[in-house]
Amino acid sequence: MDALKVGIIGYGYWGPNLARNFYELPTSDLVAVADRKEDQLKRAQSKYPQVKLTNDYQELFKMGLDGVVISTPPKTHFQIAKDCLLHDLHVLIEKPMTLNSRDGEELIELAEARGLTLMVGHTFEYNSAVQALKKYIESRELGDLYYLDTARLNLGLFQRDSNVLWDLAPHDISILLYLLDKKPVSVSAQGMPCVIPGIYDVAYLNLIFPDNLTAYVHVSWLDPCKVRRVTVVGSKKMAVYNDMESEGKIKLYDKGIDAPDYTNGFGEFQYNYRSGDITIPNIHFAEPLREECMHFIDSIANHTEPKSSGHSGLRVTKILEAAQRSIANGSMHEVIQW
Amino acid sequence: MDALKVGIIGYGYWGPNLARNFYELPTSDLVAVADRKEDQLKRAQSKYPQVKLTNDYQELFKMGLDGVVISTPPKTHFQIAKDCLLHDLHVLIEKPMTLNSRDGEELIELAEARGLTLMVGHTFEYNSAVQALKKYIESRELGDLYYLDTARLNLGLFQRDSNVLWDLAPHDISILLYLLDKKPVSVSAQGMPCVIPGIYDVAYLNLIFPDNLTAYVHVSWLDPCKVRRVTVVGSKKMAVYNDMESEGKIKLYDKGIDAPDYTNGFGEFQYNYRSGDITIPNIHFAEPLREECMHFIDSIANHTEPKSSGHSGLRVTKILEAAQRSIANGSMHEVIQW
Amino acid sequence: MDALKVGIIGYGYWGPNLARNFYELPTSDLVAVADRKEDQLKRAQSKYPQVKLTNDYQELFKMGLDGVVISTPPKTHFQIAKDCLLHDLHVLIEKPMTLNSRDGEELIELAEARGLTLMVGHTFEYNSAVQALKKYIESRELGDLYYLDTARLNLGLFQRDSNVLWDLAPHDISILLYLLDKKPVSVSAQGMPCVIPGIYDVAYLNLIFPDNLTAYVHVSWLDPCKVRRVTVVGSKKMAVYNDMESEGKIKLYDKGIDAPDYTNGFGEFQYNYRSGDITIPNIHFAEPLREECMHFIDSIANHTEPKSSGHSGLRVTKILEAAQRSIANGSMHEVIQW
Amino acid sequence: MDALKVGIIGYGYWGPNLARNFYELPTSDLVAVADRKEDQLKRAQSKYPQVKLTNDYQELFKMGLDGVVISTPPKTHFQIAKDCLLHDLHVLIEKPMTLNSRDGEELIELAEARGLTLMVGHTFEYNSAVQALKKYIESRELGDLYYLDTARLNLGLFQRDSNVLWDLAPHDISILLYLLDKKPVSVSAQGMPCVIPGIYDVAYLNLIFPDNLTAYVHVSWLDPCKVRRVTVVGSKKMAVYNDMESEGKIKLYDKGIDAPDYTNGFGEFQYNYRSGDITIPNIHFAEPLREECMHFIDSIANHTEPKSSGHSGLRVTKILEAAQRSIANGSMHEVIQW
Repeated sequence: MDALKVGIIGYGYWGPNLARNFYELPTSDLVAVADRKEDQLKRAQSKYPQVKLTNDYQELFKMGLDGVVISTPPKTHFQIAKDCLLHDLHVLIEKPMTLNSRDGEELIELAEARGLTLMVGHTFEYNSAVQALKKYIESRELGDLYYLDTARLNLGLFQRDSNVLWDLAPHDISILLYLLDKKPVSVSAQGMPCVIPGIYDVAYLNLIFPDNLTAYVHVSWLDPCKVRRVTVVGSKKMAVYNDMESEGKIKLYDKGIDAPDYTNGFGEFQYNYRSGDITIPNIHFAEPLREECMHFIDSIANHTEPKSSGHSGLRVTKILEAAQRSIANGSMHEVIQW
Repeated sequence: MDALKVGIIGYGYWGPNLARNFYELPTSDLVAVADRKEDQLKRAQSKYPQVKLTNDYQELFKMGLDGVVISTPPKTHFQIAKDCLLHDLHVLIEKPMTLNSRDGEELIELAEARGLTLMVGHTFEYNSAVQALKKYIESRELGDLYYLDTARLNLGLFQRDSNVLWDLAPHDISILLYLLDKKPVSVSAQGMPCVIPGIYDVAYLNLIFPDNLTAYVHVSWLDPCKVRRVTVVGSKKMAVYNDMESEGKIKLYDKGIDAPDYTNGFGEFQYNYRSGDITIPNIHFAEPLREECMHFIDSIANHTEPKSSGHSGLRVTKILEAAQRSIANGSMHEVIQW
Repeated sequence: MDALKVGIIGYGYWGPNLARNFYELPTSDLVAVADRKEDQLKRAQSKYPQVKLTNDYQELFKMGLDGVVISTPPKTHFQIAKDCLLHDLHVLIEKPMTLNSRDGEELIELAEARGLTLMVGHTFEYNSAVQALKKYIESRELGDLYYLDTARLNLGLFQRDSNVLWDLAPHDISILLYLLDKKPVSVSAQGMPCVIPGIYDVAYLNLIFPDNLTAYVHVSWLDPCKVRRVTVVGSKKMAVYNDMESEGKIKLYDKGIDAPDYTNGFGEFQYNYRSGDITIPNIHFAEPLREECMHFIDSIANHTEPKSSGHSGLRVTKILEAAQRSIANGSMHEVIQW
Repeated sequence: MDALKVGIIGYGYWGPNLARNFYELPTSDLVAVADRKEDQLKRAQSKYPQVKLTNDYQELFKMGLDGVVISTPPKTHFQIAKDCLLHDLHVLIEKPMTLNSRDGEELIELAEARGLTLMVGHTFEYNSAVQALKKYIESRELGDLYYLDTARLNLGLFQRDSNVLWDLAPHDISILLYLLDKKPVSVSAQGMPCVIPGIYDVAYLNLIFPDNLTAYVHVSWLDPCKVRRVTVVGSKKMAVYNDMESEGKIKLYDKGIDAPDYTNGFGEFQYNYRSGDITIPNIHFAEPLREECMHFIDSIANHTEPKSSGHSGLRVTKILEAAQRSIANGSMHEVIQW
């Protein structure tokens, strides 16, 4: 196959990383970068002098591209993606895919009708540590799952046209969907607008999956400590993915509560907790974004559904919509319609 | 004043620490220990051969004691405390003071009617790190408070006749009440019974204080990592009390979001985050429990209301009652009647 | 056997810990405490009202004791220990056993001639983490040993009549002798007197064991960070005992350099480093000092040579003497006469 | 000034970082890359398609370059650098500049005779954290310096034609020279060849500066933990630069030993240690290598001596030569002829 001809739409915070990967991969060519801001284009030019630059993404439709990567502000995702699909381009779109589920459904239908790849940039699905967690869950090394808890905290970039829910929670929700391979039944959420009226900068989510398996998500733009953590608690073992840990990002704890096999004379059950070894597995860390970009190329080449497909993006959007409703409704649990 | 004659009722997990302090303080004598279990009494005897031992706490009423310390299982607190007050003994009672607020009110009334000291073992009110946090808040060094977040996690002791809410959350709730010197308007809570049906081993609380100041409390008996953390986020600075940190338990972060003093040409506000120095203050750590025991003695001697008085214990119980109702009502916010 | 009647000589920094253990152990009775300072005796009295107190250790000879524990300043060790042995008391003596090897030899001879137990307080030989390291070495799980490195740093207690070499290095030297079960051939050392002329507060030692196995020891009274670490590097695995780590004090690293089994075409050997899992074994931590005290009692009861016998104490003293000479001789390697 | 035309000689481990910076800086053009290995050239080509590639560095002399950057194996530094200077090219050369001091002197003379810039890649002189340490020393915030201690440990890349002394110690020695702005009087060193006979993979250095100020350097290719640390201990404060710390790489400790202003009645001096706050200053981290590359360009443009000039490189080489002699001479202190 010839190298995939790729254009980047949006060269702000994340676009440069996408550009670098498609530039460096032998199976793709970075052909063009579109951005509305002149200084972003200049930055692209200094890195990639031979790449075509434009402040109008529709110019890309005349360049014979195979696919585009959309890393513009979320509110523009739908319109740009639709436009690209209508011009028969494969689309990799940053998360959140769209700001409402109807738009997401329309993109999926459009891509399927035209036989195009529609993929969402859920980077963590391509992250070795998250994959290790999934392996522990699926191999039942952790036993039955009791609950999951994630935290993604930092002093963050404030955005007036978004909130922390739509900015950070897509990471954790996509991780949870990937790990559990199940759709949550309902979600409740609490959000706080601390700095700017109406803009949540701290949020807590509670997702209920089938069989009452529960996951908690804590996201914050307003925490003094940088936290990136996923905890999975099972009946046999527990695992933590702490992305801030330099010695090893995954720890597997051989810890748990041993159920009693007897009652004592007074009818009291005796529960004991058990502490065994902790293992820090040696995980080979390929750059997750590189893996993601390669997967986009492969999915197009092989006409296969990508792991983080438009359906996956739509699921995240539906959960965020329900969470947003829950915040508005006094943190009531919102049942999600699948 | 003569040394205060003290008896300990309950020599299980925490009782030995109370006994040691009253034994070592020059202003108190440890006269007696009561416990229903023979092996606990033997442990007390090997440490304090001269102390009187009994498996019937009512024996203590014949020993000419001034006060008692009650560190028995919570469900027995009310009956024992009432009995002690009726025998004109000053009472220091472990948290939670009682399992329902009516019992708490009765103890308060009884103590006041008889001019006795009723104090609750909210140890953290006597902890130098918590006091430092309070100083930062009251001096307005943190600016306006945005929110507080606490976590108290571990692989914990399972108790069939309690749950993690009543076992661990009293610590965090008493810290919050002490720090803010305000009563919460409402509380919502989520609880999960992972190991034993009906016994919550993981819980999340959300307390709303006046002016919409919000505090989150996360407690767990089922987490692989030991976490003891209080985060206070203000408009000027942020502070973290991390009890697991060996180099310094308090960190003061000169970090924040600077509000814009202008809008740019497109009507967009420009918010920027600011990162300054982090300070780890040198805090002199007296043993909090020793400070608490001294305060009990002083309150009796001076006929003064203790900081962690029965009223303080009652406030914690009322919040826990409301949290328990919230869990039962699908995490609805429960307004607390003060 | 009746409980061993024990007296403590020296109730300063470490004596209270020894006293507590002999008091609490069911196989020993704490009968008396001797100290020249009145305030130390008062502290002992408030803890153990029934124990006999004296400011003249020779009073202990009239009390029918079985053994004594000597935790006085090191320069007094020899004279007191000799006196005690001459009065037929078993002796547990803090490290360093004596300040010169002749004195140490005399104590050993005296104890052997009189059939008395002479033991040195090398606490780390009774420490579960050090024992785990020894197991890894002896089972050859680490492969051939390449080298060992220890660090014991802190902002420490300054003593005008000692130096950091004699104060802290006995811990590390006793650990090394215990781990390797070999005597070093030579030692070189560097010492710095930073604060007080003539008093080394920072020292670095280099011990050469048979087969050129080398160990480095870094001790400091003048470091901003508290460090307590032993690193053992082997050809197959590496192990670190970090006493400051709260989650697990021992880490076993499946890391190493794999020797090449071929040369490439240019005659170059290809060495690669290999990183496998890290394991944090769950180690049951009994209090090492309690284990040590029990071992003293058992050695007396069973007429057996204690693990940290006088011979062990003498070996440490000989190494310290040679290190002190090396500092004086411009860090030349000093061969140790065994 | 026109952008500086730069060629990179050596595109192995470090060369790509240098290439990237000269490529991205607006004041330089990356014109050519020379490397003897085809696969390295291919890597360069995929990143910089427009750059000229050659496996013969002498081809660079025909390209009208202004300067070259030499990041080849150290044993080739002298010959290549000399050749480049003879072709009137400014030279930035990786550390260690040369493997013996005569070669270093020859390069300096040659550069000076021809009015060319000769600079050495002591990156840490351009590192914000090291600069902060220097500021603390020069402002006398630390008081009088007691000693410095550095550690650079890891499971490292093994090189048959180098050793850990020449590979890692140049970093620490250049940091020490920069911090203290003094030349050491003497050095002693210990080296161990653990894996490959004759190749030191662990080394300890002891440098004596004027006024007996002492610095210790510990470097290792064979340690399970990644350590990058510089400790500076002064009479007033202490500072640590820990490059592995994510929250803040510099910590300033207001700790020390307070000298007594009196003697007590027994003629004993009372020294006390003092623990104040710890400060983690907020340091703006520009990429040190980018700063270094900019400084090379500036030095050429302004005809000024670079901070890490050939003289600086020569000083490091002289110290390494003396250290190597010390290892061979049984760790004797080697006086350095300046």
